[in-house]
Amino acid sequence: MPPKDHHFQPIADESFPQGYLAAGLYCGIKKHKDTSKPPPNDLGVVISTSPRTASAACFTLNAFKAAPVVVSGEVLAITQGRARALVVNSGCANAVTGKQGMQDAWDMVRTTDCLVATHGDGAAGSVENQTLVMSTGVIGQLLPTEKILQGIGKASSSLAGGFKAWEALARAFMTTDTFPKLRARSFDLNGTTIRFAGIDKGAGMIHPKMGPPGPPHATLLGVIATDAAVSPKSLQSALTWAVDRSFNSISIDGDMSTNDTIIAFANGASGMEAEIDEETNPEGYKIFRDELTGFAVDLAKLVVRDGEGATKFVTVSVEGATSYTDAHKIASTVSASSLVKCALYGEDANWGRILCAVGYTSSLSTPIDPTKISLSFIPADGSEHLKLLTKGEPEIVDEVRAKQILEQEELEIRIELGMGKENAQYYTCDLSHEYVTINGDYRS
Amino acid sequence: MPPKDHHFQPIADESFPQGYLAAGLYCGIKKHKDTSKPPPNDLGVVISTSPRTASAACFTLNAFKAAPVVVSGEVLAITQGRARALVVNSGCANAVTGKQGMQDAWDMVRTTDCLVATHGDGAAGSVENQTLVMSTGVIGQLLPTEKILQGIGKASSSLAGGFKAWEALARAFMTTDTFPKLRARSFDLNGTTIRFAGIDKGAGMIHPKMGPPGPPHATLLGVIATDAAVSPKSLQSALTWAVDRSFNSISIDGDMSTNDTIIAFANGASGMEAEIDEETNPEGYKIFRDELTGFAVDLAKLVVRDGEGATKFVTVSVEGATSYTDAHKIASTVSASSLVKCALYGEDANWGRILCAVGYTSSLSTPIDPTKISLSFIPADGSEHLKLLTKGEPEIVDEVRAKQILEQEELEIRIELGMGKENAQYYTCDLSHEYVTINGDYRS
Repeated sequence: MPPKDHHFQPIADESFPQGYLAAGLYCGIKKHKDTSKPPPNDLGVVISTSPRTASAACFTLNAFKAAPVVVSGEVLAITQGRARALVVNSGCANAVTGKQGMQDAWDMVRTTDCLVATHGDGAAGSVENQTLVMSTGVIGQLLPTEKILQGIGKASSSLAGGFKAWEALARAFMTTDTFPKLRARSFDLNGTTIRFAGIDKGAGMIHPKMGPPGPPHATLLGVIATDAAVSPKSLQSALTWAVDRSFNSISIDGDMSTNDTIIAFANGASGMEAEIDEETNPEGYKIFRDELTGFAVDLAKLVVRDGEGATKFVTVSVEGATSYTDAHKIASTVSASSLVKCALYGEDANWGRILCAVGYTSSLSTPIDPTKISLSFIPADGSEHLKLLTKGEPEIVDEVRAKQILEQEELEIRIELGMGKENAQYYTCDLSHEYVTINGDYRS
Repeated sequence: MPPKDHHFQPIADESFPQGYLAAGLYCGIKKHKDTSKPPPNDLGVVISTSPRTASAACFTLNAFKAAPVVVSGEVLAITQGRARALVVNSGCANAVTGKQGMQDAWDMVRTTDCLVATHGDGAAGSVENQTLVMSTGVIGQLLPTEKILQGIGKASSSLAGGFKAWEALARAFMTTDTFPKLRARSFDLNGTTIRFAGIDKGAGMIHPKMGPPGPPHATLLGVIATDAAVSPKSLQSALTWAVDRSFNSISIDGDMSTNDTIIAFANGASGMEAEIDEETNPEGYKIFRDELTGFAVDLAKLVVRDGEGATKFVTVSVEGATSYTDAHKIASTVSASSLVKCALYGEDANWGRILCAVGYTSSLSTPIDPTKISLSFIPADGSEHLKLLTKGEPEIVDEVRAKQILEQEELEIRIELGMGKENAQYYTCDLSHEYVTINGDYRS
């Protein structure tokens, strides 16, 4: 695998949103295999100090929603989108754990609520049921709850606002991830500087399909915290839009997890006067939504870059569909094809496999016309495109040139359907020997 | 990989159906890499000597149907189900090859028609458009048509009816297959001995979905020849039934090919008096259909046993669904999960991944109830079942026992939904390092 460490870089303390306290530590869920190194973080907490914090989430559509997914949905409902803390553990997914799993997730919520009470600005608002919960790791095993609850207690003394605290939190999200995924960004909204901090994790079991709470909706975990002031309803609306175009447009192995969850907090600590709201201030809302979407795409791409065993970062662009949904389905199917991904790993210009996957995409609203389709490789270095198929007729492919393009770490596969005007993009990686090694023996 | 050669054994000459001539040879499509061995067969022909032969086929549902798929569909229509020859090549799929590809497929048909004229009992019936055509191999490359047409001419002198001829034909189907897939079987129908011979191929790009010609419907190739007398309509009906329960219930990598085709011939050379017909003789039809289905299941399982890089043969049984379609979709989704397949390869009892795949099965008519589902491993050696989950609550799993079961070459995963009475089975294999090696560099 190519080195991936460079995707994690220090961020200046002042880049993080105001009014948040973060912590990450080791509580003993993960095995501490290499004792010459510090133990791996497996527990994290983030708290907004403001009681007027808005929160929103998108959860997996898997029928087996893990206990933390169910519980976070309930907390959002109880608080009417005003939860203001998050507790996360890695090493155990608390999924398919029956009744005990539900109780364990609630225990994590209530213990973290105590940190909200002691660290938050408690003058207004309840300090009960304020905490959303996330777990990632092995499915079907019970959490070591006692270790976790003790760990939450220990987190209390290390809660802080700068880079070090956010980094520790980001590390607590990691399972097979090879680097912590942490980003920050700011933008100006009517004279106020708005800051985003975002963390996500995920390297396998990645093909999310998430929706807002209510109907069950993707183990990709992520949290985005901002110091913008946003109404809960508009935060949910903006997050749903952003997730569809980011986390719901990536695939590593085609497996949709029981735990996928993206959470957003907006606490208003930037000093904005009124909450951003879709109805009362559509222009401000749109700026916020698009900034959130761009930030979410950056975070989602980090997951693909760290795909288990991945050596390539591949963008699959489907253009000229009659609907966005059709374009998105085709891009999703190509991105999940084992044969396409093996060919990318082998740097083999076996483009017929791409067409084959386009052809077996199911449930399209408009059938594909094989005589209209064109296919090309777009190299990441800006050099000339390579046409493979034009309107259903194969090009005579310069194999040397194809190899040049495929040897690069990044590549765009462009599929032009020639049927309509709708486009979609998916981000995916290759399928390598290392993927099989990682997943043949994940639990040991 | 475990040795697989034992799946191919000599068959007595008298076991093959009467009235068929077969041949297989090397014509130069495949590379002859190891010159210390004879060259690999890449072209085959089978002809029924009887002009009253019935024929039927199931083709891929991929939108990009390869030229031979389109042409075979046309031949079936022209002959009204009375085609009586098959020409097959391996090494090049003649898929996504535009207009030239269509012309090449027709050239193969017409040249083979000449063999029908010289070798068939030409007294009755046409000798034009009598030939079905199949190709398998790389997608997007043109056939070396001249070599193929010369090869068909050479096949003329080696056409014969016994084991050696059928074996040579079976070898002409092979791509990444590690052994030729040839079976024969006989049964008694009202005092007449009916014989089946069957060949199939496929080791990757296997997740077929095939239907009868007409609407476009799964690179798994197969041919079943029988000396029963069957009407064309009833042969198609019996084949469609059999394919749904055999070839459409296997997965190696989840990729549905552009070329998947199963063809059946019934030439009446057994000496039956009347053609088997669903309407006039439903009892005889049902006996024939069920024998055909059992034979097709045996052939389909051979493909999974030879799955690219496969070390395990796994049956996924879904029981207690409200519909066969739901049960079949869930079994299909679990069978295609990369994570489940890697865990099987690693002999890791990571059963949460199975549940996870059940949970993301799309388009079910009845949603899964997570509190009703049970899951167990059924060892192939007849020893005790291992319960993993009972009505949504995880069992305390004896990991030593789980490992014992997973170390065996065969395994059944049983998923009990507890919702209805419908069951379905799928046959799949594991995902190994060897699979990635094979498919990372397939074309060279």
